[in-house]
Amino acid sequence: MELCRIGRVRSAHTSQQGTPIQPVFGEHADRAQLEIDAPFREALADLSGFGRIWVLTWLDRAPPFRPRVVPHRDTVERGLFATRAPCRPSPLGLSCVELLAVDAESGLLELGATDLLDGTPVLDIKPYLPGVDAFPDARAGWFGASLEEGRRADDRFNQ
Amino acid sequence: MELCRIGRVRSAHTSQQGTPIQPVFGEHADRAQLEIDAPFREALADLSGFGRIWVLTWLDRAPPFRPRVVPHRDTVERGLFATRAPCRPSPLGLSCVELLAVDAESGLLELGATDLLDGTPVLDIKPYLPGVDAFPDARAGWFGASLEEGRRADDRFNQ
Repeated sequence: MELCRIGRVRSAHTSQQGTPIQPVFGEHADRAQLEIDAPFREALADLSGFGRIWVLTWLDRAPPFRPRVVPHRDTVERGLFATRAPCRPSPLGLSCVELLAVDAESGLLELGATDLLDGTPVLDIKPYLPGVDAFPDARAGWFGASLEEGRRADDRFNQ
Repeated sequence: MELCRIGRVRSAHTSQQGTPIQPVFGEHADRAQLEIDAPFREALADLSGFGRIWVLTWLDRAPPFRPRVVPHRDTVERGLFATRAPCRPSPLGLSCVELLAVDAESGLLELGATDLLDGTPVLDIKPYLPGVDAFPDARAGWFGASLEEGRRADDRFNQ
């Protein structure tokens, strides 16, 4: 299982503390770019028609796997797979971000707010398909009760 | 960037031909299970409160990277990153599936319909969070015009 880096993130954030915990909680200053490497730029064709993309990343500064964590927006321990915390067995990041502009020639993608650190390796880009990906009424476990609090990360997963 | 397999898929599908092209296009016979390996079962705690999960997989039978493909539901070539075709630089699968039951002790997850082949390595499970993941009105490029056709895969990406 050999991963291939297709590019990297350019963002204003260099440590997890203070980054949005999800793109949807970010603001204008949390906007980011993706720099896609030359061999993969042809594959960006047709992407500009999509309003949102999935950015799959390698969370290169994530702490080691921990089976239980106290997630952001909660005060008790939860199973890691019931959270979006970064300390996963395979530290794969999954971010749903607004796609503002695509320059396929230079490989530069302008994004809305992200939850990603500067320099994070990008592994894949997929188009966001509402008919396939959007389930507004899905039951959201412990997270469902906490949606009005906590928009920025602290340093809890590095403790 | 070293991936860690946390388990594998159990499904009725052994080749891509005839599998749903996305979980949402599947039926009862496309239901699947995940078998999670013992070291990772503790991390399944609290997951049963969620109606849907993201299953991130290693598409071990995907063809090599191709920058352009004619995707399912279309008749012309598109940039690979504007499609969900499996022949990606990093063959990472992203499936939004219904979570029907969790047995954390045995590591068995009962899922709704999936688009996954039997034996596919599972890399990560994340809870589906509607407030973070659901954007029903996102602009869907070429895919937006084609949502009423084609629910099952053919053999096109192996040609």
